[in-house]
Amino acid sequence: MENTHTFEAIQLEFSQPEIAVVSLNRPKKHNAMNWAMFEELTTVFDHINSLRDVRVVILKGNGKSFTSGLDIMDANEKIFGKVDEHSEDVGRKAILYHKILKILQDSMTSPEKCRMPVIAAIHGYCVGGGLDLSSACDIRLASKCAKFTIKEVDIGLAADIGSLQRFPKVVGNDAWCRELAYTSRIFGAEEALENGLISHYYEDKEILFDEALRLAKLIASKSPVALVGYKEGLNFSRDHTIEDGLKHVRTVNTALLQSEDNMIAAMALLSKEVPKFSKL
Amino acid sequence: MENTHTFEAIQLEFSQPEIAVVSLNRPKKHNAMNWAMFEELTTVFDHINSLRDVRVVILKGNGKSFTSGLDIMDANEKIFGKVDEHSEDVGRKAILYHKILKILQDSMTSPEKCRMPVIAAIHGYCVGGGLDLSSACDIRLASKCAKFTIKEVDIGLAADIGSLQRFPKVVGNDAWCRELAYTSRIFGAEEALENGLISHYYEDKEILFDEALRLAKLIASKSPVALVGYKEGLNFSRDHTIEDGLKHVRTVNTALLQSEDNMIAAMALLSKEVPKFSKL
Amino acid sequence: MENTHTFEAIQLEFSQPEIAVVSLNRPKKHNAMNWAMFEELTTVFDHINSLRDVRVVILKGNGKSFTSGLDIMDANEKIFGKVDEHSEDVGRKAILYHKILKILQDSMTSPEKCRMPVIAAIHGYCVGGGLDLSSACDIRLASKCAKFTIKEVDIGLAADIGSLQRFPKVVGNDAWCRELAYTSRIFGAEEALENGLISHYYEDKEILFDEALRLAKLIASKSPVALVGYKEGLNFSRDHTIEDGLKHVRTVNTALLQSEDNMIAAMALLSKEVPKFSKL
Amino acid sequence: MENTHTFEAIQLEFSQPEIAVVSLNRPKKHNAMNWAMFEELTTVFDHINSLRDVRVVILKGNGKSFTSGLDIMDANEKIFGKVDEHSEDVGRKAILYHKILKILQDSMTSPEKCRMPVIAAIHGYCVGGGLDLSSACDIRLASKCAKFTIKEVDIGLAADIGSLQRFPKVVGNDAWCRELAYTSRIFGAEEALENGLISHYYEDKEILFDEALRLAKLIASKSPVALVGYKEGLNFSRDHTIEDGLKHVRTVNTALLQSEDNMIAAMALLSKEVPKFSKL
Amino acid sequence: MENTHTFEAIQLEFSQPEIAVVSLNRPKKHNAMNWAMFEELTTVFDHINSLRDVRVVILKGNGKSFTSGLDIMDANEKIFGKVDEHSEDVGRKAILYHKILKILQDSMTSPEKCRMPVIAAIHGYCVGGGLDLSSACDIRLASKCAKFTIKEVDIGLAADIGSLQRFPKVVGNDAWCRELAYTSRIFGAEEALENGLISHYYEDKEILFDEALRLAKLIASKSPVALVGYKEGLNFSRDHTIEDGLKHVRTVNTALLQSEDNMIAAMALLSKEVPKFSKL
Amino acid sequence: MENTHTFEAIQLEFSQPEIAVVSLNRPKKHNAMNWAMFEELTTVFDHINSLRDVRVVILKGNGKSFTSGLDIMDANEKIFGKVDEHSEDVGRKAILYHKILKILQDSMTSPEKCRMPVIAAIHGYCVGGGLDLSSACDIRLASKCAKFTIKEVDIGLAADIGSLQRFPKVVGNDAWCRELAYTSRIFGAEEALENGLISHYYEDKEILFDEALRLAKLIASKSPVALVGYKEGLNFSRDHTIEDGLKHVRTVNTALLQSEDNMIAAMALLSKEVPKFSKL
Repeated sequence: MENTHTFEAIQLEFSQPEIAVVSLNRPKKHNAMNWAMFEELTTVFDHINSLRDVRVVILKGNGKSFTSGLDIMDANEKIFGKVDEHSEDVGRKAILYHKILKILQDSMTSPEKCRMPVIAAIHGYCVGGGLDLSSACDIRLASKCAKFTIKEVDIGLAADIGSLQRFPKVVGNDAWCRELAYTSRIFGAEEALENGLISHYYEDKEILFDEALRLAKLIASKSPVALVGYKEGLNFSRDHTIEDGLKHVRTVNTALLQSEDNMIAAMALLSKEVPKFSKL
Repeated sequence: MENTHTFEAIQLEFSQPEIAVVSLNRPKKHNAMNWAMFEELTTVFDHINSLRDVRVVILKGNGKSFTSGLDIMDANEKIFGKVDEHSEDVGRKAILYHKILKILQDSMTSPEKCRMPVIAAIHGYCVGGGLDLSSACDIRLASKCAKFTIKEVDIGLAADIGSLQRFPKVVGNDAWCRELAYTSRIFGAEEALENGLISHYYEDKEILFDEALRLAKLIASKSPVALVGYKEGLNFSRDHTIEDGLKHVRTVNTALLQSEDNMIAAMALLSKEVPKFSKL
Repeated sequence: MENTHTFEAIQLEFSQPEIAVVSLNRPKKHNAMNWAMFEELTTVFDHINSLRDVRVVILKGNGKSFTSGLDIMDANEKIFGKVDEHSEDVGRKAILYHKILKILQDSMTSPEKCRMPVIAAIHGYCVGGGLDLSSACDIRLASKCAKFTIKEVDIGLAADIGSLQRFPKVVGNDAWCRELAYTSRIFGAEEALENGLISHYYEDKEILFDEALRLAKLIASKSPVALVGYKEGLNFSRDHTIEDGLKHVRTVNTALLQSEDNMIAAMALLSKEVPKFSKL
Repeated sequence: MENTHTFEAIQLEFSQPEIAVVSLNRPKKHNAMNWAMFEELTTVFDHINSLRDVRVVILKGNGKSFTSGLDIMDANEKIFGKVDEHSEDVGRKAILYHKILKILQDSMTSPEKCRMPVIAAIHGYCVGGGLDLSSACDIRLASKCAKFTIKEVDIGLAADIGSLQRFPKVVGNDAWCRELAYTSRIFGAEEALENGLISHYYEDKEILFDEALRLAKLIASKSPVALVGYKEGLNFSRDHTIEDGLKHVRTVNTALLQSEDNMIAAMALLSKEVPKFSKL
Repeated sequence: MENTHTFEAIQLEFSQPEIAVVSLNRPKKHNAMNWAMFEELTTVFDHINSLRDVRVVILKGNGKSFTSGLDIMDANEKIFGKVDEHSEDVGRKAILYHKILKILQDSMTSPEKCRMPVIAAIHGYCVGGGLDLSSACDIRLASKCAKFTIKEVDIGLAADIGSLQRFPKVVGNDAWCRELAYTSRIFGAEEALENGLISHYYEDKEILFDEALRLAKLIASKSPVALVGYKEGLNFSRDHTIEDGLKHVRTVNTALLQSEDNMIAAMALLSKEVPKFSKL
Repeated sequence: MENTHTFEAIQLEFSQPEIAVVSLNRPKKHNAMNWAMFEELTTVFDHINSLRDVRVVILKGNGKSFTSGLDIMDANEKIFGKVDEHSEDVGRKAILYHKILKILQDSMTSPEKCRMPVIAAIHGYCVGGGLDLSSACDIRLASKCAKFTIKEVDIGLAADIGSLQRFPKVVGNDAWCRELAYTSRIFGAEEALENGLISHYYEDKEILFDEALRLAKLIASKSPVALVGYKEGLNFSRDHTIEDGLKHVRTVNTALLQSEDNMIAAMALLSKEVPKFSKL
């Protein structure tokens, strides 16, 4: 695999020009999320959005886990310590926390803002911020050994930084999310599947990554104009009424229905050949 | 069965005055959706809304399928061709597409706008627009052989005309909808049931239609004032906050609680007799 | 068990200072909801919100059932009769119904407005208003024998007083809710579990109550500041877009991240001891 | 003036192919709004939307007034009488009123749904429904003699049919609308201007109509693609947040920025010539 | 004037059974808002809502002013002191402030929740909370000597308790509100009129009160069913889209159009007599 | 004046550490907005947000005008030309336009996202994008000679890039905005004042800048914690219901009421001294 870019806490590769693979890359620390990782996630997804070839993204963890969540030591220094140092006034601290939380939340939102579909491939621990991050992906696959938990309450974060905002909308089972939030209970792949958090789980990490790649290849064979349009429409609709969603998609399509990709797909269907779409 | 009205692409019957049966009726083409069908769906449901006897509607397909989705040949002539002929200017085409898409979307929304509950009975193919249309029904039943797919991306429609706006709200599993949209994967009755798209599936088409009728009869025995109020309330609540939903239903009920049907139902319960409600 | 307060239709106990147990208490009438119960539910949850020790609430029914829903006899006298007596004018009746329905809905909303998590423990009948009330709880557990139904349509209430507003948002399966509303079909614990209405069911009422208490104790061991913040955030997010939800939670946390509970939880984690949080 | 279409209660003319003039046409009754007028307003604006030449619409009244509002005699027969005849049941009447009110409201909303800007030219009485109808126009001009009032409360309509929904959003002075609604006070052109209801007033009816035409001609000289885009954007933004409005307009413009009209306008500006835009 | 109820900080009178007059009643302190006043405002408006005769409310101040805003001394003891005493933890203080602010905001919202129109008659100082309270009224009248200011920033309240939420929606001039909030500038009746905060101003306090009463009498002569319906509709529409507002008002009117008041008003109009409506 | 940073198209100065002055700086081109200016506006306001001393910002133009709007030549090269070069496909162009428009809109939104109040001081031309940019400021002041216009339609932009989304919400007179958008009419300071676009106008540019500075100094003397809280609250409330606005401000204030600035302001009031607040 070439075209590998290694940042401090993130690795970016391309298994083929259409498929970007983003790996959380602090394997010795179970990919615990430090300040560098938060910043680099934003940067890397911004970069991917500028690449005309990319049609799908895989997000995974290097080493034994997807991520063990917030790196407490790093946060003590780079977040909590910094705020305490900044001022002793509750009001000024509040204003600074507001700013920092925005940066963290924007980082977690990166996969959702990515114009192309993002597949999360989850193995080992997927804790706290890991649930945030993977909830912002389009599709979640896991290995059988995956262990999930919203453990903020137990690691000294009375207040979560966003798990409870996106996760319940993805899952659709309100009470399950509440139980997990109030108890920090650990759950496995089976329960994640039953509750719609993941779409499939696989025997081990290798099969998981192979299957994520297989799905990515299938998606990468489709019209990139269609993929951008679908994701934009799905994101918009989730947060609006059906009527607003319909109004939005017909506005989007006033342009997209005039794309050459429609004709290319139709011709391919008739000729039983594989359609070839140009880059974005 | 009498009282049958046959339009170009739709058939309307009444198994009893309270139960309207709307059949997609281009059996030789697997009920592919042509311009006539789009227009007639709007017309037929408008007509049903004016009938005081009707308390429930069944929507199904004649022949081997519910519907194979958009009739490409017809669309090439009546939609895409017409737009190309209209103007060469991207802006003017966009404005015309906006208008046409509104007509298509309004047609797909007809079952939702119908004041009475609509049951979709789905067998064979249920493709693209078929998913839109059935998602706008209150309840979906299927036969074991049903085959579903959002295949827009593969038939030369980079841009869908509304599947992705209503379907995810009906289903509740966000990632599943995204996978289906990005891959056009075909899925069967079992998977449809597991993901909440359908409420039940039956061994074959005949049992399906019998069971749809049985359910329709049960619903038809209830107060028509209650049915109208329930459907109105459910539709409103889906697109509003709980607080707004509660405000709406208590406003609706300032009138409906004064209906004679409340007394009739209560009396029937006490006397163990079947209540008789007058038409709307 | 001491510290028992018995009202006309409700009983309030404390299994320990952190755990309030609210019991519907008209066991001879299967806890049918009379006017007193509606009023007392509001009062009791208001009272609980003022208790600094309470960290979690259990809501259950005394006797053979959770509740058989609206007490028709009582409603005929206290609601319908009162309205008929008030005026003969449709408009004036409408205005009075609007006011009464607000009181009933506010009563059903009490568990949601409670700042602490509320666990519903449901056995026997859970009918009509019982579904409303338990839908407003955070988590629902049931016994195997539980029987649920939206039976408004059959008991002489053409118009429901709110079941259809909160219930579908909790459950996530739109068509299932519609079928239940249109048919008043009775369903059991198994079906309730499959559709996400309840989180677990247990062999009998005793095990149910034990398990509800076990879950309550686990929740009660967590930071009360975190619990209040989580519930506030979850309630807000359910009715807003993800973006608004994120904005809200970062505003909430400008204060909560400065709470001592964060440090106490972190220290406990490091020292492997049980954290002790002061009352609210 | 040729090309005049006269319906029962509405007259449609074209002062030039780009300018449609819609006149309320029951001059002997001060253009009181009868059932025919409600239906024809919907029809005429639908028709105008299908005309590729039209770029702006003027809405005015023939005879001595814009309109004196609801025709009570006609309403007694076609609305209230019809409902009373339909059923004696409060619930069934309510359902029928809901349907009829939707038809009336849709009629009043016609100018807003018109894709092209609509200028209301108001002289004489502008009462009740007249305020609804003109509030749904883009711009309101008046003659000095114009007399406005929300007089529903005094003509026997305890409940208005929509004045209070659109009027306050157009005007921006909440308290002024409330005073007018609660008192049915009559006000003149001066007060209408001060409160932003009208943009200008003119000495008499003739000057008013001339000035409305002059404004229409100015608007008709602009790009029709731009006009459609502006109105669509303004309507959307009024009912959404700024952020949603911005998202919408950039989606609209993905197509409209590719229109030939942009180049034509720019060339005309440079060459100091009048730009010529083709029809829609 | 009889029927006077005097509470600790509020006085309630009835100039006639249809007109309730609520007076802020701490004249020696310019009606500074203490905890008792906040609580009694809520209580008094709740009480008024239960009186079937009342059709309109006047809200005014006894003595030299409407109100000088928050009573700092009282707040130091009953609010800030109480919170400081409650706990030293920032999180626990935050939770308690949230609860107290809800009580204060609910008090300020009382006139808006009142089912009948409320007229504020403002003389002398109208400071801080006085702007909140009067913004929640339907109509604001003032004397020439009235002095308004949002002075929170200068009296030691870095954070306002709600002025900036309701005031800008009433006024419609965004930038003016921002300037006032950022500078605490004092402004008079003339500027208040120009910016739509008040509807009229009068030479002195006596004329003001006379005119408020005259307006109240005019409103009190209208159908109480209509008044309730109008206010409900106006409040709903302000916070919703036009489309939702129209849907709401047609739902409200399914009942209200069946009221006897419609016939009574129509008959009175024909017979040129003053209509007599029965109480609510 | 020291501390001047000059970028390609923007100049940033500090008249005192608390007051940042941002000047559009292409005086030879009437500050026409080129790509550099769009990018630098975003950068400069981001930078200001990180400065702990700044309490208020003035935005103005160097030379003869505020800004003449989009620099057509630059846009032809950097925007329209770039898109044409990118692809010939309507769909791909649409996707690129969407991305570019987002960048332009974000630039125009910079003053609104600035945590501190921003005062626009407008002289000479304020065209197109100039209206966007100044609408996103908190307060607008102008010189008598200011000339405003939404001239997109005449310079070859059938589609505006956002004027119509923010401008009408600031102004509150819907019809006036529509007339300006449909006609590109030029209007002066008097009309801008009457319609609430500006708060005051002054005899000439020098007085304007002096008065803007005087207002800035007044604002800069207030608690910075209060200013941040007020602006955040006002922005939130504008786009939400009153109820949501109240909920938000009480959440914000759970932290801000614990700030030292409250005590400092109160003490200063009592001691009649000028309060001194520490930086943020």
